[in-house]
Amino acid sequence: MRVRRNVIVIGMGAGNPDYVTIQAVKALNLASVFFIPDKGGGKEQLARLRRDICERFIENRDYRMVTFDSPVRPKPGGDYRKGIKAWRGEVERVYERLLADELGEDEYGAFLVWGDPSLYDGTLRILESIRAKGRMELEYDVVPGITSVQALAARHKVPLNRIGEAVTITTGRRLSQGFPEDAGSVVVMLDGNAAFTKVEDDIYIHWGAYVGTPDEILVSGNLEDVAGEIERLKEAAQKNHGWIMDTYLLTRPESKED
Amino acid sequence: MRVRRNVIVIGMGAGNPDYVTIQAVKALNLASVFFIPDKGGGKEQLARLRRDICERFIENRDYRMVTFDSPVRPKPGGDYRKGIKAWRGEVERVYERLLADELGEDEYGAFLVWGDPSLYDGTLRILESIRAKGRMELEYDVVPGITSVQALAARHKVPLNRIGEAVTITTGRRLSQGFPEDAGSVVVMLDGNAAFTKVEDDIYIHWGAYVGTPDEILVSGNLEDVAGEIERLKEAAQKNHGWIMDTYLLTRPESKED
Repeated sequence: MRVRRNVIVIGMGAGNPDYVTIQAVKALNLASVFFIPDKGGGKEQLARLRRDICERFIENRDYRMVTFDSPVRPKPGGDYRKGIKAWRGEVERVYERLLADELGEDEYGAFLVWGDPSLYDGTLRILESIRAKGRMELEYDVVPGITSVQALAARHKVPLNRIGEAVTITTGRRLSQGFPEDAGSVVVMLDGNAAFTKVEDDIYIHWGAYVGTPDEILVSGNLEDVAGEIERLKEAAQKNHGWIMDTYLLTRPESKED
Repeated sequence: MRVRRNVIVIGMGAGNPDYVTIQAVKALNLASVFFIPDKGGGKEQLARLRRDICERFIENRDYRMVTFDSPVRPKPGGDYRKGIKAWRGEVERVYERLLADELGEDEYGAFLVWGDPSLYDGTLRILESIRAKGRMELEYDVVPGITSVQALAARHKVPLNRIGEAVTITTGRRLSQGFPEDAGSVVVMLDGNAAFTKVEDDIYIHWGAYVGTPDEILVSGNLEDVAGEIERLKEAAQKNHGWIMDTYLLTRPESKED
């Protein structure tokens, strides 16, 4: 007989622990087992943040943390999608083992996802794939969380969209292939290579690193004026912290009649 | 001498009152005056939701609600941007009067925004414009909130983006001009006219109305199979509730090698 497993994928927000929602607090208090990846670039800090959030918001102390080594995510470049898919396969085997061995039938297991589980995070695809294989009877729920995109806009106090126009959320890798033609504004996540320095149009940038945390850095201005400064700040911060998470909003100037 | 005014723009999330963040709860408890628009399509329900959120989360009972008639937002169509800008001018005069007359120098005023203040909401632009005019010394902070986009993805338990690809958030009006060329997936908000029925590609849709509320309706499937059903549900719900707020995610099929 197949085992039953119940999981909640909890978006914990990006940056400020106060971004946690009431729904996430309830989910934290429902879960008995927290699966915490704890190795590799920036993961130590994220693992600490996850522990802090659990300690702060869980009233029932009767839970356990299961830490695990997560396979290292491939760097952007090369055949990125193929690399990501192979990596997800490995992660899937790790998750399947964790769910089978470390969780009981009447317990809820939880994965705490930085930001929101629906945006540039693999957890939902991995769980769906495990569920589809059918070796265990897996149920899961999703709790949305504040993304770094929203944190960026809030801290800069700006709207993401121009009036009535679209917002495109994309990666540094895709931006380096060109500014999307019909996009009113573009938000870039996962940019390891300062792709904004390749953009040549007349563009305004709102940039932020470690947004919502005590280490937050915010810069805004015309891209041609501030790109160099941002690049320097980014490099120095990367060196200083050992990891960086930055996000930025690129906006074309509003047309004259605006 | 110019008066000083302090305002917090609070994203209250979209749908489920549990989407409220800890940061929003703190902001609710800091504010003394809540400005509540209470007339026009769907505003009664939203006003009730705002009141419910205040009652549920504010521990200090020493606050007041200031309700006001908000000018009616123009319907999509015609010169939408021009219409929106004229409407914002009217709203701006209303807000300026509210801030001058209904708030003291040592108090915080709050606007509770459905979803997140950075996405398809005019409050930040209006406040920035009032601040720029300089008649009052206006300071404001922004608290992000869970958007209907995130609620939709969470309730359908799906990622917004395909692996490594972009997500475009757009309006029904823009979608009816064509499915964006290079978009991996598209999220549509503010669609009064069922623009999805005009999309002819091979597309998968995740649709939701009143997402996160007890009235939630979710439908997903190949667009050509479910478009008619969604259109019928949408019409019936609009008739039944007197208003509708729906959102949907359109995704092209993953290519064969995925």
